[in-house]
Amino acid sequence: MTKDKTREALLEHGTRLILEQGYNHTGVLAILQAAGVPKGSFYHYFRNKEEFGLSVLQRYFDQHMANVERFLSDASKPPLLRLRQCFEFYVDYFQKHDCRWGCLLGNLSQELADQSPAFRAQLGELIGKWTSRVADCLKEARDRGEVAQNLDPLRTAEFCVNSWEGALLAMKAVKDLRPLHTFLAFFFDRLCAKSIQG
Amino acid sequence: MTKDKTREALLEHGTRLILEQGYNHTGVLAILQAAGVPKGSFYHYFRNKEEFGLSVLQRYFDQHMANVERFLSDASKPPLLRLRQCFEFYVDYFQKHDCRWGCLLGNLSQELADQSPAFRAQLGELIGKWTSRVADCLKEARDRGEVAQNLDPLRTAEFCVNSWEGALLAMKAVKDLRPLHTFLAFFFDRLCAKSIQG
Repeated sequence: MTKDKTREALLEHGTRLILEQGYNHTGVLAILQAAGVPKGSFYHYFRNKEEFGLSVLQRYFDQHMANVERFLSDASKPPLLRLRQCFEFYVDYFQKHDCRWGCLLGNLSQELADQSPAFRAQLGELIGKWTSRVADCLKEARDRGEVAQNLDPLRTAEFCVNSWEGALLAMKAVKDLRPLHTFLAFFFDRLCAKSIQG
Repeated sequence: MTKDKTREALLEHGTRLILEQGYNHTGVLAILQAAGVPKGSFYHYFRNKEEFGLSVLQRYFDQHMANVERFLSDASKPPLLRLRQCFEFYVDYFQKHDCRWGCLLGNLSQELADQSPAFRAQLGELIGKWTSRVADCLKEARDRGEVAQNLDPLRTAEFCVNSWEGALLAMKAVKDLRPLHTFLAFFFDRLCAKSIQG
């Protein structure tokens, strides 16, 4: 493998293992074995496990945001429908994957926010960026009269993102998509109120 | 220490350590040391670490539900206000504790639901009981005309509990009570809609 490919393989297998087992429970050796990379070469690519974990988180976020952007920038649809379809995409994803793993942003917030200032700072920044993108979409929906004028886009986006993360937690516990469908129904049909048939 | 007191000390210190570090990251030795209990005596009280963890979870839940019940059974106040004040009690609690730890039910759902069928089954059952108690309160609120007649109490309770757990995740990440206040504002003022001044 080239140097870039080796690094990418470590990040890819590390992401999967951390999603499955958590960060603390995932050893460097297990990551190297999963990626088929010789022992000892880990520290050619990453200073330590924390730097590796932060790189896993950043890569996961970049892929997530590319996905979010793909939905939210589709000007052919009304803004609220774009946002809903983005979450529906993830509902399909978790259906395919038997309600496992959840979201790495939520998982690492739970596991590491109290333990690592570096993870906490990065998680806060990344969740803030996602929330801000959702807020832009809600602002557009408000400007078009799709949601009530007195819904504050940023606070509504915070509630949306946080409630989604909570729904994912519940999904993992009950191994059923129902918490995600409940989120969609309450957030979009109740809270954002107006009909959004596309 | 008597046998019962030793068992209680192990559970109490175990709860704190698992809240701080997670279940996988907390070793039996660390629990024994924190509780000041001699090595080797752990297995007099618990068959294995999983049985211990399940006992920690049950004890945490029993305390949580005693607390929930204290608020929700107070017939001197309107039902929706009781529910709100129960969550406000926890907002004060997390303010005192610098936005750390979160809720053990949510934490272990995140950490163990994919790893342990025994934890998953117990988490599903306990979260179901809490949700059901919240649903009873919301049904009472609906019967008294405090919330819209078309709000389904059980699904609304599910959304409430899940969104609260999501707000706690965010609180841990940003180390700020804002996600909890946002939850209160959106769930009670927006979703449940009618004024609930007590």
